[in-house]
Amino acid sequence: MATIAVIISNMFEDSEYSEPVKAFLAAGNKIVHIGIHAGETVKGIKKGTPVIIDRELKGLQIAGFDALLIPGGYSPDQLRISEDALRFTREFVESGKPVFVICHGPQLLISARVVKGRKMTSWKSVKEDLINAGADFVDQDVVEDGNIISSRSPADLQAFIKASLNKLG
Amino acid sequence: MATIAVIISNMFEDSEYSEPVKAFLAAGNKIVHIGIHAGETVKGIKKGTPVIIDRELKGLQIAGFDALLIPGGYSPDQLRISEDALRFTREFVESGKPVFVICHGPQLLISARVVKGRKMTSWKSVKEDLINAGADFVDQDVVEDGNIISSRSPADLQAFIKASLNKLG
Repeated sequence: MATIAVIISNMFEDSEYSEPVKAFLAAGNKIVHIGIHAGETVKGIKKGTPVIIDRELKGLQIAGFDALLIPGGYSPDQLRISEDALRFTREFVESGKPVFVICHGPQLLISARVVKGRKMTSWKSVKEDLINAGADFVDQDVVEDGNIISSRSPADLQAFIKASLNKLG
Repeated sequence: MATIAVIISNMFEDSEYSEPVKAFLAAGNKIVHIGIHAGETVKGIKKGTPVIIDRELKGLQIAGFDALLIPGGYSPDQLRISEDALRFTREFVESGKPVFVICHGPQLLISARVVKGRKMTSWKSVKEDLINAGADFVDQDVVEDGNIISSRSPADLQAFIKASLNKLG
């Protein structure tokens, strides 16, 4: 059983949150929602899925978590202006613990400056930014490079979830 | 009198569209809304301001336009995956005609690959992407470099509009 941090803010892509989380819980893992303000309810962009933030990012240590999920939509655009979100994300990627990132999620990794030389994919609007940040962009449903597993969009969720569950072991 | 193209899609930042357009019209200029589908109504992210697309980007020539306005919000994220939008934007910047860009607007210029060596500003979430694309990022209310005038957010609108009107002459 793993404790998985989900870093999330408003306008997340509903299915990129709800489907992996459903699969992670079904496999016996624990989910902790982390964000800017503990107790705040953030909502999905298409269905308004409500998510209550369990722990605030300010001062949060990565020690209590085994993996990190970064759903897409416009949540990553809002998180990437938070120094606390960038510090937590950077430490997580550098720790070698699994990071599952989909769609616009890589925007957070770009601002955390941890994508250089990493083989990754993303939603197509983020492609140029990933390449400019030094990532080795690959256009396929799921890409695994060390501890980073990335996918492009909701259409890739099946492959994304399968690879993520395999990584959790 | 200038004919100003406004390149726009859904989830634009209402004020970054409505305030410059109001000022441009008051100064006697003409506005043409350009986007993915002519006749489509796109809407602002905060107030739902409706904008009807006058001309579709596919095959659209820059010859009939004197300046280009790129409002922010999440409209640029949607436009930057359109090859037609990128071609039109690239030709516009390279033509030397004035380009007014604010907030997330520079995302469109990054994907069009026209920011290298240009002195610019943007909304803070786009900063890292602009720097990685080779722009000379400056954190101030309005930045003018040749034909590109850029600002950071709705809070900069007064300076952005003043500089844009000056450029139109």
